[in-house]
Amino acid sequence: MTKGRSKPPPAAAAGALPVRIVLVAPSHPGNIGAAARAMKTMGLSDLALVRPERFPDPQAEWRAAAAVDVLRRATVCDSLAAAVAGCSLVAGASARRRHVPWPWATAADFARQVADRPIRAAVPQPVAVLFGREASGLTNAELEACQLHVEIPAHPAYPSLNLAMAVQVVCYELRQAMLRRTGGEPAAAPWDRPLAGAEALAGFYRHLEDVLRDIGFLHAADSAGATMTRLRRLFGRIALDETEVAMLRGVLRHAARAAGSGSPPAATR
Amino acid sequence: MTKGRSKPPPAAAAGALPVRIVLVAPSHPGNIGAAARAMKTMGLSDLALVRPERFPDPQAEWRAAAAVDVLRRATVCDSLAAAVAGCSLVAGASARRRHVPWPWATAADFARQVADRPIRAAVPQPVAVLFGREASGLTNAELEACQLHVEIPAHPAYPSLNLAMAVQVVCYELRQAMLRRTGGEPAAAPWDRPLAGAEALAGFYRHLEDVLRDIGFLHAADSAGATMTRLRRLFGRIALDETEVAMLRGVLRHAARAAGSGSPPAATR
Repeated sequence: MTKGRSKPPPAAAAGALPVRIVLVAPSHPGNIGAAARAMKTMGLSDLALVRPERFPDPQAEWRAAAAVDVLRRATVCDSLAAAVAGCSLVAGASARRRHVPWPWATAADFARQVADRPIRAAVPQPVAVLFGREASGLTNAELEACQLHVEIPAHPAYPSLNLAMAVQVVCYELRQAMLRRTGGEPAAAPWDRPLAGAEALAGFYRHLEDVLRDIGFLHAADSAGATMTRLRRLFGRIALDETEVAMLRGVLRHAARAAGSGSPPAATR
Repeated sequence: MTKGRSKPPPAAAAGALPVRIVLVAPSHPGNIGAAARAMKTMGLSDLALVRPERFPDPQAEWRAAAAVDVLRRATVCDSLAAAVAGCSLVAGASARRRHVPWPWATAADFARQVADRPIRAAVPQPVAVLFGREASGLTNAELEACQLHVEIPAHPAYPSLNLAMAVQVVCYELRQAMLRRTGGEPAAAPWDRPLAGAEALAGFYRHLEDVLRDIGFLHAADSAGATMTRLRRLFGRIALDETEVAMLRGVLRHAARAAGSGSPPAATR
């Protein structure tokens, strides 16, 4: 187990899909171990744990079986933001249909999308898949931090898969999709710019909210939260690249300056 | 739990695939409970146990969570023959490729075959899927008692799924195949707003370009065309809905007004 994300992520290993599994506040160490085993059986090894209740723990090791290496390389993070740092897409496993519809895919369709994404061999930017707490899943704020929600089509009478089982099914679908892709199915053309990482996106949203207040679009009295949710849903639907985020922030700086607030946009473009 | 197979199998329940999961000599009661939960999340409930080491057991109940009903209706058998009595097809989960080639399918192909079988409502003849011991799987004799071997395409470096995880993946594929057959494949949740039409988008881009000039982001001297091209590529990827276009134009009106140009944003939101 390591703190922080200084080392190169293990998903950079040859042939593997660059996917990071993120367990958010898991209660039972057994589930962490079982998730690590599930990942390794499907060729994945990049595991991040956000504030696990008990870790490391002998039960995790026992349930991991021959995947203790995945456990030992797992990153323990204090925040979700740290766990998804550097990720180009953040998806969240969710069983709940919410009031505000969000971009959504079944596990199988999600896996196909991941396998078809432009992937840069030089600097892999992993796709993160978040799994929530055993008892209550992901919070609304965590779900809104995801560009995409992923659902396992379970039986409506009892759709509650055990946490590690859900990890197994998603990892299984990712491997199936990768096998199909490397089996000769044409991959998508690579995008021409690196995709924006999670921190860059978080910074953009903060900047956007600030400027929208400056120009009077967002008011405290207003349902500013709902508006920002709509804007996150809007921009979250596309994988913004780094150049686009820089361009949008340039627009924001000019808007703030024209409105008479903010610092002069010296180095904006 | 019941002894023998006198009662009608629960798989006869309306709409469910007539599939019996058979665990052969499982060692750990936790795995029995986890398998029951995995089955129920995928709409299956016909569980048979051949000479389980410890059953019933509190660990099985704990891991079954809300699937204790599946556990309690499980049939405990003294022999494999008793467990598969009345079944129309017997398949065995196997990770091993054997010397004698045997009819063989991936979990996904097997599930499709099962979903495509003619099903008799009056006298259901279940398909049995056997899962072997945690440590050693099914014996050669047990594998030869199967008409078909089923393999989960795992990573060659560590293809050893936990017993209940293998049950989860096979049951997941069975449900996926049944949903496809019945046309009940979960459709993407419908988007909550109509998508913006071409004229609405053209109006938005004109408005965007005007305001970007007002706030000094676009200059005539600049390669304004290239910047607008990037912005079109960006927003064009989103499939903006009507509400979002209205919201973005509200932002533009506020930005223009804050910059001291444009008409007052009276009816902007």
